[in-house]
Amino acid sequence: MSNSFGHTFRITTFGESHGGGLGVIVDGCPAGHPFPHARIAAQLGRRRPGQGRLTSPRQEADGATVLSGVHSATGVTLGTPIAMVFANKDARPHAYDNLAELYRPSHADYTYEARYGLREVAGGGRASARETVARVAAGALAEDLLQVLHGVEIVAWVDEVAGISAGHVDAETVDRAAVDRTLVRCPDEAAAERMIAAIDGARSDGDTVGGVIRCVARGVPAGWGTPVFGKLTAELAGALMSLPATRAFEVGDGLAATRLRGSEHNDPFYRDPASGAVRTRTNHSGGVQGGISNGETIRLAVAFKPTATIFREQETVTRGGESTVFQAKGRHDPCVLPRAVPMVESMVALVLCDHMLRARSARVGTGG
Amino acid sequence: MSNSFGHTFRITTFGESHGGGLGVIVDGCPAGHPFPHARIAAQLGRRRPGQGRLTSPRQEADGATVLSGVHSATGVTLGTPIAMVFANKDARPHAYDNLAELYRPSHADYTYEARYGLREVAGGGRASARETVARVAAGALAEDLLQVLHGVEIVAWVDEVAGISAGHVDAETVDRAAVDRTLVRCPDEAAAERMIAAIDGARSDGDTVGGVIRCVARGVPAGWGTPVFGKLTAELAGALMSLPATRAFEVGDGLAATRLRGSEHNDPFYRDPASGAVRTRTNHSGGVQGGISNGETIRLAVAFKPTATIFREQETVTRGGESTVFQAKGRHDPCVLPRAVPMVESMVALVLCDHMLRARSARVGTGG
Amino acid sequence: MSNSFGHTFRITTFGESHGGGLGVIVDGCPAGHPFPHARIAAQLGRRRPGQGRLTSPRQEADGATVLSGVHSATGVTLGTPIAMVFANKDARPHAYDNLAELYRPSHADYTYEARYGLREVAGGGRASARETVARVAAGALAEDLLQVLHGVEIVAWVDEVAGISAGHVDAETVDRAAVDRTLVRCPDEAAAERMIAAIDGARSDGDTVGGVIRCVARGVPAGWGTPVFGKLTAELAGALMSLPATRAFEVGDGLAATRLRGSEHNDPFYRDPASGAVRTRTNHSGGVQGGISNGETIRLAVAFKPTATIFREQETVTRGGESTVFQAKGRHDPCVLPRAVPMVESMVALVLCDHMLRARSARVGTGG
Amino acid sequence: MSNSFGHTFRITTFGESHGGGLGVIVDGCPAGHPFPHARIAAQLGRRRPGQGRLTSPRQEADGATVLSGVHSATGVTLGTPIAMVFANKDARPHAYDNLAELYRPSHADYTYEARYGLREVAGGGRASARETVARVAAGALAEDLLQVLHGVEIVAWVDEVAGISAGHVDAETVDRAAVDRTLVRCPDEAAAERMIAAIDGARSDGDTVGGVIRCVARGVPAGWGTPVFGKLTAELAGALMSLPATRAFEVGDGLAATRLRGSEHNDPFYRDPASGAVRTRTNHSGGVQGGISNGETIRLAVAFKPTATIFREQETVTRGGESTVFQAKGRHDPCVLPRAVPMVESMVALVLCDHMLRARSARVGTGG
Repeated sequence: MSNSFGHTFRITTFGESHGGGLGVIVDGCPAGHPFPHARIAAQLGRRRPGQGRLTSPRQEADGATVLSGVHSATGVTLGTPIAMVFANKDARPHAYDNLAELYRPSHADYTYEARYGLREVAGGGRASARETVARVAAGALAEDLLQVLHGVEIVAWVDEVAGISAGHVDAETVDRAAVDRTLVRCPDEAAAERMIAAIDGARSDGDTVGGVIRCVARGVPAGWGTPVFGKLTAELAGALMSLPATRAFEVGDGLAATRLRGSEHNDPFYRDPASGAVRTRTNHSGGVQGGISNGETIRLAVAFKPTATIFREQETVTRGGESTVFQAKGRHDPCVLPRAVPMVESMVALVLCDHMLRARSARVGTGG
Repeated sequence: MSNSFGHTFRITTFGESHGGGLGVIVDGCPAGHPFPHARIAAQLGRRRPGQGRLTSPRQEADGATVLSGVHSATGVTLGTPIAMVFANKDARPHAYDNLAELYRPSHADYTYEARYGLREVAGGGRASARETVARVAAGALAEDLLQVLHGVEIVAWVDEVAGISAGHVDAETVDRAAVDRTLVRCPDEAAAERMIAAIDGARSDGDTVGGVIRCVARGVPAGWGTPVFGKLTAELAGALMSLPATRAFEVGDGLAATRLRGSEHNDPFYRDPASGAVRTRTNHSGGVQGGISNGETIRLAVAFKPTATIFREQETVTRGGESTVFQAKGRHDPCVLPRAVPMVESMVALVLCDHMLRARSARVGTGG
Repeated sequence: MSNSFGHTFRITTFGESHGGGLGVIVDGCPAGHPFPHARIAAQLGRRRPGQGRLTSPRQEADGATVLSGVHSATGVTLGTPIAMVFANKDARPHAYDNLAELYRPSHADYTYEARYGLREVAGGGRASARETVARVAAGALAEDLLQVLHGVEIVAWVDEVAGISAGHVDAETVDRAAVDRTLVRCPDEAAAERMIAAIDGARSDGDTVGGVIRCVARGVPAGWGTPVFGKLTAELAGALMSLPATRAFEVGDGLAATRLRGSEHNDPFYRDPASGAVRTRTNHSGGVQGGISNGETIRLAVAFKPTATIFREQETVTRGGESTVFQAKGRHDPCVLPRAVPMVESMVALVLCDHMLRARSARVGTGG
Repeated sequence: MSNSFGHTFRITTFGESHGGGLGVIVDGCPAGHPFPHARIAAQLGRRRPGQGRLTSPRQEADGATVLSGVHSATGVTLGTPIAMVFANKDARPHAYDNLAELYRPSHADYTYEARYGLREVAGGGRASARETVARVAAGALAEDLLQVLHGVEIVAWVDEVAGISAGHVDAETVDRAAVDRTLVRCPDEAAAERMIAAIDGARSDGDTVGGVIRCVARGVPAGWGTPVFGKLTAELAGALMSLPATRAFEVGDGLAATRLRGSEHNDPFYRDPASGAVRTRTNHSGGVQGGISNGETIRLAVAFKPTATIFREQETVTRGGESTVFQAKGRHDPCVLPRAVPMVESMVALVLCDHMLRARSARVGTGG
């Protein structure tokens, strides 16, 4: 079950980084939705390595092969499981031969062996960030459902790299075009330049940097999410922190909320005279109260550590317990954040799409 | 399913804050474990309101009534569901009558109604922090299993209140006695005094403050946790962020990791000559790599916003959409953090206990 | 998880037969439904021992204490977990002392010990039929939702006892009043008399008899159930075969279908001129095709073995492996079938109610 | 979730009958097991159409392509999800064009449309028996684990066709070689001849026949299965009744048990002097008591209706509700039972393998 996510809209991913291929099964997609090939391709393109000098030159042919779940006559979803498979085109298994007998620091080599007694060496096996291809494809389907059925918009961006922060980004208006304007996917172009310089600097040092991605979801109606363990905040946290290299998660004002008093943090309610809707004057809560959406924009952040693959000598041990030194070779990003933007959007979409469907049984009537 | 947590060791909680009572069912507790009445009582006592001037004077009789799952002859677990029920002794439903027709800012009043079309007014219904009684009882059972079967120790403490931070707390040695030495459950006594002053200050202003709890789990063997969606980090994040009033989660170095380079953050491996175990020289990862424990101490933090119940006038609307003003009355903590310490420990224990059992099927042999 | 049933409408039962009490948590009940106290009491009354000379004279006070999930002001469901608890009033633990050291033939004594290393002796612990109190209460809630929201009617009856079969019972018209007219809950009064005689005969021999219960569900709309593992037929089979003492399950024509040819068994479609609905001329399929309801009456049967508790000497062994002889004492039914009628109805209702809600996310629109 | 089966050893199947392909993900397979390519191929071969004149001449290339989960260096399982994909080689989508506008009697055409608003016409979509390829492959892996780790043997055979029953088949000794000796997979050769004649007779009439498959599982240790909803009997029932065309399920003596008295049906315990094990003198219970295995041979039966595809004119309606006549064409089995033998074995293996792993957490020690 550890490879499945979601309840009513449920995905299961599979596949090692190198080998026959990897993929995803989406079980619970409602029938009758035009399958969004273009959106999936677009998001996979944003996740793909080799997009520019900031990302790994490794080539991945990320076209989704759809094996099932789409009506052959009309192209809409059938309600049956949707399988998408991605071939591993650029596998070079022997590139990894020297890794078989040692543990790379801060990778999953040692822990996988501790758990399973063995590990797939090529490409980092299941721990590779390549697994996120499957999530991004499924997430693009989820966000398409959200947008078509409820007008929900999800936008993530790189907000900080190596301690360099973007200036204010307007949660109500930022869009993907603005995000993609810079190579580093930060809509603040001045900050983006400094981030890029930091990444370039790390690369020339054979080193890596981390940072923070922020994400907003606009248009989520009030009433999604459930009390207690299925709070939106809890499920978003679990979703985002399942991405590789994540170290922290915030919702709403996040850590900064702890320095406010209740009188400063509480969001007063008012009635919007135009729409008649109950709204909040401020949105410190980030669109979720008591685990359930309140109709305001959902705001969250997720922090990524510097990736573990550095091109410098590091102390480690062999499988036999002997001291040794490891220095990585090959094709790796000095900073994962630009490519992680669609991963964050996808995990948010998967949580929200699941709750969109779960809300349908919240009442005896079909509202929610 | 939103009221259940865990896979193999699975709890389901129920109960509104006021009314017949609340409780928890633990399904999947292995048979043959002496039922830890004393540990459960101790942790419930630490969670209970009315422990001192920092916590609400509201009385809760938190004794767990064990209805099932324990062998009448020997007091060990039967392997069948363990039901613990907690009566609501101090219910004063009419104290809440004035809340029925308005939405308290930053509470779950509006969002519950948006979802369900109605809400239980008395005591905040299911959104009340009283629901955590059930989690703490189940978590105490989980931590007892962890300690007896694997020697795992879990200790949480208040590390920051209203921006006042504790000095360095040693993750390897801090224990509950040190934590409980101060009223605010911060082991740094000097910082604790300043935190208490801040809480007292907020209370006299009719206001509330937030803060940060840190938690360590020592003695977790390498190999717990699963790849992808069931990463320890992901499940801990989801668990902790399901607690009321939580706004942020960190593991290992957390947000600070984003300001390190890979060469600084990576944890070199070495072989401990004494035990022969593979260890890491540093522990920036916080005991989890690739979602799986590596045998080092697990370190995490969770941030709580200032609680929403303040004794000052706030703008809000009635259910009918009219503008109104709300000012809380009654018995409420100006700062939840001291009482949240056992809640944090319990959620960590629930995740780890589940993974302790899940690890048993990781290999064809029964190790893990 | 073995004590939970259902996906969207999910119950978890707990409790040994003797001890603090047993109960059920219903998670996923939609909000806004008037809680059906009377229907629950009625079905519990039909399940209760001591209803007449055919059932055990053991007294059980089966009144459900509702701890949570119901709106205190209006009595409708809140959408939060509904907990119902049943006290064990007539517990006589010492009545079971002589059972602690041996294995009763065809009971769960030996198998529970094989699994758990111990067992609760009093009352048969979790294996007792008393556990079904919890299912019947939850099932009565489920059938109330089904009836109010979709007009579904569920009726079960005793169709065979000890090889004595009822004559034809009309699936389209049989109701609970007709079923309850005879002590044995068989609507064919002549057959009922012979069944009662057979039960009385078994009792005077210190023996027990089995039989078959049939059940119909009328008014289920077309489109409930899912392909593959969640077929209505599969989930009904799993549900019914989880009742104690069950040995066989049939749907539609059941075993008799195997002796028909396809041309005899297929149900031709026609369009009902009155309603415009697509209907079938015959209903050999029992209302389910490809695992999904087709709008016709659902028909099924479940067979119960003779209960294991007989008042005759039987060969067995002690826990230490010594040969011994066991003869039951106490209060036990010679035939469980009359009391099992509401159990069967309840399990059917739980499956259908879950699928009623699951159907709400079958399409991009909310139909289903 | 309707396309997943199992808890700890969990499969998810996908794929329409025609189109890109179908497959299965196995999540939870323990690491370190040599992947049983040969056993999988053998069981797929027994399921394949075109094996002889009794089965459809339709060709399916059933070779499993293993995409993930197997160690490239050693061929053992990795503990990560195992994906097996099966191409649809002999797809002739246009063969189905005439089916798009009408509902075939006793197929899933109408019910799928009632649920989803549309259906995949080619090959019957997801309702096709071709979906069982995925189950058989996963089931062969499960039975390999069972055999290697616990010596469990699972054997199914055709016991009745069109009312023609096999004579006594010895549950303790029957093996697959004996089963496969006859074209109809009935180990009683004389009965097999009459069954074959009945099938041939049906075929020449353009008609179909049904029957009964029996299955035994030998060597299951005492203690597998759980009380209440996870009873082995319940999960086996749900598993078997999820196969296409199933109408009835029995365990142990099944329906015949209802005609015995308790004194006849109860299985006396004794201690086997050779092994020291607790055994039963008879095995009316079919190896399961209280839902948990008792160490005796598990015996069950499953009944299949005559398949719906007949080559005779049948009354039906079009999608628009007009009366019409339908007569099937193409390649279809007059009797599914011979090919269903490995399907039955596979579903039994999936249930038992899941419970083998679940038993590992039944006690504080790792036994079970």
